[in-house]
Amino acid sequence: MALLFLSDVDSARDWRKELAKHLPDLEMRVWPELGDPGEIDAALVWRPPAGLWNRLPNLKLIASLGAGVDHIFADPSLPPGVPIVRLVDPYMTTAMSEYVQLQVLRLHRNDPVYRTQQQARVWRPWPQPNAAERRVGVLGLGVLGRDAASKLEVLGFDVAGWSRREKRLPGIPSFHGAAGLDALLRRSEILVCLLPLTPATENLLDTRLFARLPRGAAIINCGRGRHLVQADLLAALDSGALSAAVLDVFRDEPLPPQHPFWRHERILVTPHVAASTNPPTAALAVADNLRRLRDGKPLRNRVDGSERY
Amino acid sequence: MALLFLSDVDSARDWRKELAKHLPDLEMRVWPELGDPGEIDAALVWRPPAGLWNRLPNLKLIASLGAGVDHIFADPSLPPGVPIVRLVDPYMTTAMSEYVQLQVLRLHRNDPVYRTQQQARVWRPWPQPNAAERRVGVLGLGVLGRDAASKLEVLGFDVAGWSRREKRLPGIPSFHGAAGLDALLRRSEILVCLLPLTPATENLLDTRLFARLPRGAAIINCGRGRHLVQADLLAALDSGALSAAVLDVFRDEPLPPQHPFWRHERILVTPHVAASTNPPTAALAVADNLRRLRDGKPLRNRVDGSERY
Repeated sequence: MALLFLSDVDSARDWRKELAKHLPDLEMRVWPELGDPGEIDAALVWRPPAGLWNRLPNLKLIASLGAGVDHIFADPSLPPGVPIVRLVDPYMTTAMSEYVQLQVLRLHRNDPVYRTQQQARVWRPWPQPNAAERRVGVLGLGVLGRDAASKLEVLGFDVAGWSRREKRLPGIPSFHGAAGLDALLRRSEILVCLLPLTPATENLLDTRLFARLPRGAAIINCGRGRHLVQADLLAALDSGALSAAVLDVFRDEPLPPQHPFWRHERILVTPHVAASTNPPTAALAVADNLRRLRDGKPLRNRVDGSERY
Repeated sequence: MALLFLSDVDSARDWRKELAKHLPDLEMRVWPELGDPGEIDAALVWRPPAGLWNRLPNLKLIASLGAGVDHIFADPSLPPGVPIVRLVDPYMTTAMSEYVQLQVLRLHRNDPVYRTQQQARVWRPWPQPNAAERRVGVLGLGVLGRDAASKLEVLGFDVAGWSRREKRLPGIPSFHGAAGLDALLRRSEILVCLLPLTPATENLLDTRLFARLPRGAAIINCGRGRHLVQADLLAALDSGALSAAVLDVFRDEPLPPQHPFWRHERILVTPHVAASTNPPTAALAVADNLRRLRDGKPLRNRVDGSERY
């Protein structure tokens, strides 16, 4: 079996080493060295260039190198029949939840204010409720959103979740659909975005949504940069509709040096590190699906092409 | 019963209101309005001035407005026979553990580096292990240390604890004594100080201790300022023995404007906010002990005068 590996952020060397442990006979070709494209059975990709799919006539599986698959659907030439699988790795899920826990605790404990005060050498304590008195909303209740919501609940926060379709979480109120979104937003002092990026969720974090949050709410975006309307965030921070934003994902990555987010004192930037792909653990999931493809068994974590997530 | 209230950081008005809910007949006098000092039965205090105790001939109870009692023992004129009680309030314990969780997650997730990078508009991801691969040590296994250690364990960290005398925590390795301290330090990439301040623990966080931690370790001090030798911390950060420090407590509070900690890029300062006394919940514990005093019942959370904690 021949696999095409394509990524500008993941290490081909690490992946070759890890996949070889599980599939010693796998032939891994690293983009742009395709060899005979007709021999390539599967592709393991992150942000593939437009037109790639037309060059792989016998492709039987497209596997994402990240939890999201929006980067695969971005190319309109994507052939409709080829199965697509997302990457689900408990190690990455844990990493994402750690990031969410850190950032929610940071906002809950007024840390952006204390950082600004330290810069100005100002000693000023602020009133501090416990987590049980802080309402947090999680947008998206897939593998990542569910884990984050339940781990915020363990921290003691008053957590609720929202997803497009109805989902049930033990011990956590969950809303769904358009009316449910309104209910979730009205209660969320801290809002975490863990949605997949689809035509239905693109630009969801906009002025209209911010206006439905309690005044002075804070947002954390660890979905995709395209969930957020950048100008609307800046306006909401200026007006006081929002008090702070923590952003791990951006429309352009790396975030360009002149971008206003870098120097905004109420925006905290991290360089897309919430849940990086970890080859030693992620290779288990990828190898499992490659084996299933070889053996004609049903694939795991397959994406619904019509829903695009 | 007459109670003397004395604090320059707690609100006498809030305390009067909350204590009245539980003890409507209590007479609360606010320092420096002593009235007839011979009528005062109990004192609820934070950092009492030297010589106070000599002025209260019929004192039967000294209650701390904080978890620590070092501020009471600071006055050598403290009469030996008067019972002293610390403040134990589950609301404050939870607040302290939230603070510890936030700061440990912050150090674990390389946040000091990402803050510096944001200032310089640098987009640079760093390798990130999961919490299970991060060893955290907690010094002090009293009410606060035990709660913090178990809540760090819930976050997935590889936690161990240390106390002077042997203590057992479910699921968490705990060391004790001088040899145990060495073992705890050698394994702690992140060290949290939640010790009481006593003659035995003063200046414990010094060059000798930092040298026993893994190189590049980070410390969090939410004990007392006098646990830390300030010049030794600056030297350890300069030499790379330590990579970062999070400090909530200081020898002089408020931290003086010209103090070097304010502008050190590897020191994060918070203005003694890890676990502020919360009158609505703390008054329950204080009122309970005042009632016990009145009724001649054993006091709760009594301090051992010879141990000074």
